[in-house]
Amino acid sequence: MTEQSFMGGFSQLALGVCYYPEHWPEEDWVEDAAQMRALGLRCVRIGEFAWSRLEPQRDQFDFGWLDRAIATLAAEDLKVVLCTPTATPPKWLIDECPEILPGDPASGHVRGFGSRRHYDFSSTVYREEAVRICSVLAQRYGNDARIIGWQTDNELCCHDTAHSRSTAAGQAFQLWCESRYGNIDDLNTAWGNVFWSMEYLSFDSIELPFGAVTETNPAHQMAYRRFASEQILRFHNACCSALEEHIQNQWITHNFIPMKDTQTDCFALAAPLDFVSYDSYPLGRSEFLLGRDEPELARRYMRTGHPDYTAFYLDQCRGLKNRGFWIMEQQPGPVNWAPSNPRPAPGMVALWTLEAIAHGADVVSFFRWRQAKFAQEQMHAGLLRPDRSQSDAWHEIEDVVRVLNILKEESLPQPQAQVALVTDVSAQWVSDIEQQGQGVEAHRVTFQFYRALRRLNVAVDIVSHSADLSHYALVIVASMPIVSETLLEACEQSDATLLFGPRCGAKTPEFQIPPNRAPGLLEPWLNVKVNSVETLRPDVTEPFEYQDQVFQSRLWCEDLTVADATVAAYYQQSRPALVRKGRCLYLATLTDDAFLRQLLGDLLKEREVVICELPEDVRTMTRGSVTFAFNYGATAYTLNRLSDLPLNAEFLVGDAVLAPRGFSIWRSE
Amino acid sequence: MTEQSFMGGFSQLALGVCYYPEHWPEEDWVEDAAQMRALGLRCVRIGEFAWSRLEPQRDQFDFGWLDRAIATLAAEDLKVVLCTPTATPPKWLIDECPEILPGDPASGHVRGFGSRRHYDFSSTVYREEAVRICSVLAQRYGNDARIIGWQTDNELCCHDTAHSRSTAAGQAFQLWCESRYGNIDDLNTAWGNVFWSMEYLSFDSIELPFGAVTETNPAHQMAYRRFASEQILRFHNACCSALEEHIQNQWITHNFIPMKDTQTDCFALAAPLDFVSYDSYPLGRSEFLLGRDEPELARRYMRTGHPDYTAFYLDQCRGLKNRGFWIMEQQPGPVNWAPSNPRPAPGMVALWTLEAIAHGADVVSFFRWRQAKFAQEQMHAGLLRPDRSQSDAWHEIEDVVRVLNILKEESLPQPQAQVALVTDVSAQWVSDIEQQGQGVEAHRVTFQFYRALRRLNVAVDIVSHSADLSHYALVIVASMPIVSETLLEACEQSDATLLFGPRCGAKTPEFQIPPNRAPGLLEPWLNVKVNSVETLRPDVTEPFEYQDQVFQSRLWCEDLTVADATVAAYYQQSRPALVRKGRCLYLATLTDDAFLRQLLGDLLKEREVVICELPEDVRTMTRGSVTFAFNYGATAYTLNRLSDLPLNAEFLVGDAVLAPRGFSIWRSE
Amino acid sequence: MTEQSFMGGFSQLALGVCYYPEHWPEEDWVEDAAQMRALGLRCVRIGEFAWSRLEPQRDQFDFGWLDRAIATLAAEDLKVVLCTPTATPPKWLIDECPEILPGDPASGHVRGFGSRRHYDFSSTVYREEAVRICSVLAQRYGNDARIIGWQTDNELCCHDTAHSRSTAAGQAFQLWCESRYGNIDDLNTAWGNVFWSMEYLSFDSIELPFGAVTETNPAHQMAYRRFASEQILRFHNACCSALEEHIQNQWITHNFIPMKDTQTDCFALAAPLDFVSYDSYPLGRSEFLLGRDEPELARRYMRTGHPDYTAFYLDQCRGLKNRGFWIMEQQPGPVNWAPSNPRPAPGMVALWTLEAIAHGADVVSFFRWRQAKFAQEQMHAGLLRPDRSQSDAWHEIEDVVRVLNILKEESLPQPQAQVALVTDVSAQWVSDIEQQGQGVEAHRVTFQFYRALRRLNVAVDIVSHSADLSHYALVIVASMPIVSETLLEACEQSDATLLFGPRCGAKTPEFQIPPNRAPGLLEPWLNVKVNSVETLRPDVTEPFEYQDQVFQSRLWCEDLTVADATVAAYYQQSRPALVRKGRCLYLATLTDDAFLRQLLGDLLKEREVVICELPEDVRTMTRGSVTFAFNYGATAYTLNRLSDLPLNAEFLVGDAVLAPRGFSIWRSE
Repeated sequence: MTEQSFMGGFSQLALGVCYYPEHWPEEDWVEDAAQMRALGLRCVRIGEFAWSRLEPQRDQFDFGWLDRAIATLAAEDLKVVLCTPTATPPKWLIDECPEILPGDPASGHVRGFGSRRHYDFSSTVYREEAVRICSVLAQRYGNDARIIGWQTDNELCCHDTAHSRSTAAGQAFQLWCESRYGNIDDLNTAWGNVFWSMEYLSFDSIELPFGAVTETNPAHQMAYRRFASEQILRFHNACCSALEEHIQNQWITHNFIPMKDTQTDCFALAAPLDFVSYDSYPLGRSEFLLGRDEPELARRYMRTGHPDYTAFYLDQCRGLKNRGFWIMEQQPGPVNWAPSNPRPAPGMVALWTLEAIAHGADVVSFFRWRQAKFAQEQMHAGLLRPDRSQSDAWHEIEDVVRVLNILKEESLPQPQAQVALVTDVSAQWVSDIEQQGQGVEAHRVTFQFYRALRRLNVAVDIVSHSADLSHYALVIVASMPIVSETLLEACEQSDATLLFGPRCGAKTPEFQIPPNRAPGLLEPWLNVKVNSVETLRPDVTEPFEYQDQVFQSRLWCEDLTVADATVAAYYQQSRPALVRKGRCLYLATLTDDAFLRQLLGDLLKEREVVICELPEDVRTMTRGSVTFAFNYGATAYTLNRLSDLPLNAEFLVGDAVLAPRGFSIWRSE
Repeated sequence: MTEQSFMGGFSQLALGVCYYPEHWPEEDWVEDAAQMRALGLRCVRIGEFAWSRLEPQRDQFDFGWLDRAIATLAAEDLKVVLCTPTATPPKWLIDECPEILPGDPASGHVRGFGSRRHYDFSSTVYREEAVRICSVLAQRYGNDARIIGWQTDNELCCHDTAHSRSTAAGQAFQLWCESRYGNIDDLNTAWGNVFWSMEYLSFDSIELPFGAVTETNPAHQMAYRRFASEQILRFHNACCSALEEHIQNQWITHNFIPMKDTQTDCFALAAPLDFVSYDSYPLGRSEFLLGRDEPELARRYMRTGHPDYTAFYLDQCRGLKNRGFWIMEQQPGPVNWAPSNPRPAPGMVALWTLEAIAHGADVVSFFRWRQAKFAQEQMHAGLLRPDRSQSDAWHEIEDVVRVLNILKEESLPQPQAQVALVTDVSAQWVSDIEQQGQGVEAHRVTFQFYRALRRLNVAVDIVSHSADLSHYALVIVASMPIVSETLLEACEQSDATLLFGPRCGAKTPEFQIPPNRAPGLLEPWLNVKVNSVETLRPDVTEPFEYQDQVFQSRLWCEDLTVADATVAAYYQQSRPALVRKGRCLYLATLTDDAFLRQLLGDLLKEREVVICELPEDVRTMTRGSVTFAFNYGATAYTLNRLSDLPLNAEFLVGDAVLAPRGFSIWRSE
Repeated sequence: MTEQSFMGGFSQLALGVCYYPEHWPEEDWVEDAAQMRALGLRCVRIGEFAWSRLEPQRDQFDFGWLDRAIATLAAEDLKVVLCTPTATPPKWLIDECPEILPGDPASGHVRGFGSRRHYDFSSTVYREEAVRICSVLAQRYGNDARIIGWQTDNELCCHDTAHSRSTAAGQAFQLWCESRYGNIDDLNTAWGNVFWSMEYLSFDSIELPFGAVTETNPAHQMAYRRFASEQILRFHNACCSALEEHIQNQWITHNFIPMKDTQTDCFALAAPLDFVSYDSYPLGRSEFLLGRDEPELARRYMRTGHPDYTAFYLDQCRGLKNRGFWIMEQQPGPVNWAPSNPRPAPGMVALWTLEAIAHGADVVSFFRWRQAKFAQEQMHAGLLRPDRSQSDAWHEIEDVVRVLNILKEESLPQPQAQVALVTDVSAQWVSDIEQQGQGVEAHRVTFQFYRALRRLNVAVDIVSHSADLSHYALVIVASMPIVSETLLEACEQSDATLLFGPRCGAKTPEFQIPPNRAPGLLEPWLNVKVNSVETLRPDVTEPFEYQDQVFQSRLWCEDLTVADATVAAYYQQSRPALVRKGRCLYLATLTDDAFLRQLLGDLLKEREVVICELPEDVRTMTRGSVTFAFNYGATAYTLNRLSDLPLNAEFLVGDAVLAPRGFSIWRSE
């Protein structure tokens, strides 16, 4: 069950904006604040990236401008979210300590000053500097009632900064190995270094798993990824602790990028936070997901984003702490960083904002107040254009404010789901390290299950391997080569139907094949053994039979030996592809979407979960008694009281006809 | 108006050839010279790349072979063009001063010895060495009547050598910044370095805009490109000055590559030259332009080159100094450097030669006399094969000689155009630095307008932003984000119809958004404001309405607010896409070719410029009373006295039937 | 004529396996050995990559485990093939002498420890270390009757290790140049360094041909490739000598990768070996060959490999020493290193094994006994799964054992071919260095002739340029820019029909154009001269006429002048494309497969060689009186006594109906 919302100081849903007063003449600030309030915004994020203005030279601080900016905003009753500026160490600091800079894993080249995120998570020098600036800021502003909370750093790991090949990283990795394995023989055994004479004689001769003649040991790579994730946590935890030491009645959050792009254990990263925030840019993200491999979908959703892709990250956000979250940066128009950057279709900014709320967001903050007139993001839309005129998003936000006013009478607990999708960053690590087949990526596998569920109109919780699963009807572990005892205990505590996808249980934590082969720890649950794995070219599919219907198997296909269990689907030649033992199923192959919808629908119906296959472009989501329906399509869609609209629905906003890129909201008990 | 031709010492059109006597036994030279003369060639370029033979070791010069080569050529009344050998510093010089070598911008790796162009434009050591060898040569040959002129270096900036990431470049850039901005605060303000804490405390901490974690500040990149362009000018000007100090009655030229590939202000680069030369390789260039994105066109024009692409560069050459120019290297057969290297269709060598003349070339010099038997260019055709037999081009050149004999009675002033296409290298820099949409490149935008005009059978001048525009009927500024006051003054001095393409006026010189937004300085001319820009996937187009016809909008689409002006074309939903105020138009989107032809045709007709839509493969060009018509197609085309052939045309060469890959020439008053 | 088979100590065909006892608990070894014997295996390769276990620290040897492993295997009458572990220098050695590591040619970056093949062939330090460990092993085991022979290193040059840009390589190259050219002027002349002032003043200023601004001199690149090949030979010869010094009654072999991937003169590499071995992975290799450019074929043969591609390498193996060979590693299931890794179709492991035998293999050894549970190759199938269960291949190997029992009564001399395909590594070097046209690669050209011949059901010997050609009916030199006098003498000694492909004779050994132009030394044989070469886009073909039929010319097209010779095929406009003078033909262009089959069929019929066009998926091969027929297709094929089945055939295995992925074997006199 999802916990209560965390409004972050507000008593109800609110909107906010990201603001960089230091980019604009001080005489503009008063009008900025007045207009923010007039638009209906309630909070303003400031201070991000401002280190060179806060501390222009070492130990020479300038807080005057920030004090005045806070005062100006507070005068309009706007709450301030203050950022730590650690994503942008200033030039004087880099010149003083160039060893702060990270190294590019592929080339080993230093990644230099001149943009952002030019620091190494393993640099103790930098960690101390980051803690110092956080402490200075928290000491000054940690007890200031105008500040409701803090954002740490910015988009941790963005620009592929999770991994580094620096001297600092190399030394830290040796220490980490020593700490994890204790003695070098154990490390050699754990990694299987006897293979190819890769054995080390001492921890101080261990290298980073980069730059070898051909691929390095996957166990070595896995250890590096674990190490890198822990370095990021250590850095971030230190910053959070520095804040916590001084703040009172203020919360701490961080604005995440898509979780897979952090390369990090995001559940752990979220641990010290009061709640999670997400930076939501549906169009560019959709282009990255679909642009190359699925150009037809990319064209279809060019101005809306894929109907499930944003929601997938929203549900991940909710799941990270099992509570309400914020959108810290919401796309308000064309951006500047995708291969092509179209305009959102009219209505989409409002739709995305309400969709975030429907999935559990408590506050949505737009990025950015005013389009920058200089530097890297000039082509990124804001709510105001550089000349202060209102951008296209302005009126859509006014619409949202009106909707929020309607909703303020409603109780909006967090969404409740009967289906859990269990994830773990290790799944991504395994598929990155040992892909085995072109196109096989853990996050795409998980997303395919997610979108099949959403087409069936069910809510989905995306949870960690250590989550309580007792209240779900269906638990799906789409991709998890390393299955933990914790997960299996939670499965035992639950009576949910359990569906495991291909490769689940196929690896030990040290990236070996389990003694009993795949699915390893899952074997007693299923009485199945994986004999071998084949991967298919992305342009090949093969027939696959389930319930007398033919679907398609693709990309990843395991050959199984089945003992005492039921075969529920077959490859050609009647070879088992889906096995069921009691409430537990194992799917041995990746498939087309149609099969997933059919299978999941059958499993949900069996558990008497109400499903309803929605059109391709329509989705709904419910908080308490309030349901939101969204139409991503270019044509209107009429909800149907016999299927996707409850008989007792009372419309709060809109009606049964969903306009193109429109939404309706109703109450039903 | 285009100035007179500069024949370079000849009283009429002439042909020449590039020759490397040092590659061949001295006993062959006499026969070479005799055959050149017999073929009808008048001048011979020599000495290019010959530094290791002119100065085998420091200060040990060997001019004997060069003296004998000059004498041998002169004995056959062949005029010599002498080259400075600065494109190939010899090994002893690199070993002595390895800091001459440039650095690769992406990797920072030294670009070493072993081919050509291995020098850094910012190296003061090398500039002095280049000046030294130029002076030595000019002192010796600067008053020699057998030498008509000089070519500096070779194909400046070829092989992506305009940009370098060397220590020399880094230091020179710091000095350049100090000189341009005076104090560091002004630089920080100009670049907007407050964004992402990119502020510098001193000029000596400024870095080159390479190797950062993500994209560097576009203003920083813009400054670097300006700097790099100026370094190239400084190097080249120094070489020209060294020559000028000693030469008498000799001219100086340089053989340009396609202007966009120089990354440099070519108008400025041409300033110290007496005239411009161009190295014309239609097939490889066309393959580079079309091969990947437009394979159908690439196949169609595989053996001819695109009918407008060579001409586009010819017209640029004419425009650089507003006078006649030379083709210093003309492709005579298959080359060696494109992904595939087909044979020119029979007739094309003659066609290209006469096309160059039609567009204003006074001399066409073929590359090369004799196909090299060794080293990098063995697969590059010459007029002779390595064994002295005649290549396919030989007889086509004989044909050209006959045509030139016919033309020698005609007056051939430079072409006169009623249409100007205004260009500036800054447009290319902006689109390279901030592309914003895949496929959007300034030179492709400009070329699209050019080819639409040429299909309408009008001559085009390609001029700089500081050109006199008073004598044109139509002035097109296809792509110019940074519009200068100079250009607007010239527009005011002219009564031409003015057409500005998308993104014009969108940036200040320091790469910021103008205070009044795009189109910045153009706003009073048009009463229009750009609200936002979107870029579309290259595989998407959207309908676009003009004069009740539907065309296609593509790639780059601006949303406009129009005040007191007429909307002449519309996107979907009647949103303005083309705006007109008086004689001035602003086109807010890239479009298909059909629309450009329609619009430009309408504008030309309005100004009573005679147009005639030519077939896809036929083009004409006029010098004085002489018109040349060319057929790039594989089938004959009959000119029509009602449209593309004047009623009073008297044929000098050929007749109204243009053979495949053929040409006709007529006189009309 | 191919020499006798070399069974390597066996009196008949045998099977073996690759085994890594050090990867498994010692208590498993006895059962492993018993199962190997029970399966019918006769020999076991061990010790590969085991340096860190044989010499855990310098001079501290541990042979106990190896002794026990050998004893365990010998107890089951299994013969041991012992490997030198030089492909994996251990970490202590790299830490001691980091200069052993090779450098990446493109970037110059060190290629570090962490996988395998991390040594530079030019490192004298490493050569001494490799010789040392070989000597130590040979001293200990060189007179042990349980060991039948040795495998040197592993897959020399795999992972693109033939070329290196290290300090060691740079210094060795200078010495090599001095040794080859004697004085620097001769080198400059040989390379044509006058071109672009590339002249060197001394050998110690010569650089490796990498990292220049643009392409380096092809003669320089050619010299580097010769040097690199000789460095590999020197390294390998030294290892072989070290073994030979101590061994008695043991042979030496090496397991080759596809010959083109060695970048080395494989005939010379094979010289010190008793016989050649090959590592045969049909699926991944086929994917690499076809995956990108011919996706339809890649899909069709996804689970079988292309019917001719494995055989092409088998016939190369037989040709390297003109005698029987081994398959040292035979793919037994899905592998782990191709972009996608499908399962072999049922039957293919047996089919591949017998196909290898049909082409001359005497022993086939499967890779590997037991699938690794750790490190880089966990996804690579073995005969046993990690948990000791039998993989899919097991029963196919049992089938093979039964077949070998049937065959043991038969005499199986090496295959006899009437057609020779002459190859030389220099052809590959030329096409790599000066490709001139996208898609033109020497090995693809040669393979195209090979597969045309195989469709015509003839056996092919693949021989070196110095082979005796006297007993062939047809000799094909598909691609050989550098033709040697030796080859021409062999051609003279033979009365075979001689067919030379495009570019033959086009270069001198120092990569210059021959004085008489292409085809250089071949001119007197053909009375033809190549005027020019054009290359076509891969998406273009052009009609081409032979015997009144129209075929397609593609990729590479030479223009010819023909003196006293017959033109046998024509490009468009009746330009000569195939010339014949007596028994010698010159084909001036690459073509479609249909033409090659037609031409080769005509030439073979003329020599009364029996041909028969086989279906796309069926092939046969004959050893003595025993013929093997294979069906790569998914449908059965019935052999026909009128064409592809001799009238007197007596079936030993199977019958006239070739099952899908099946085989039959018959005896006929």
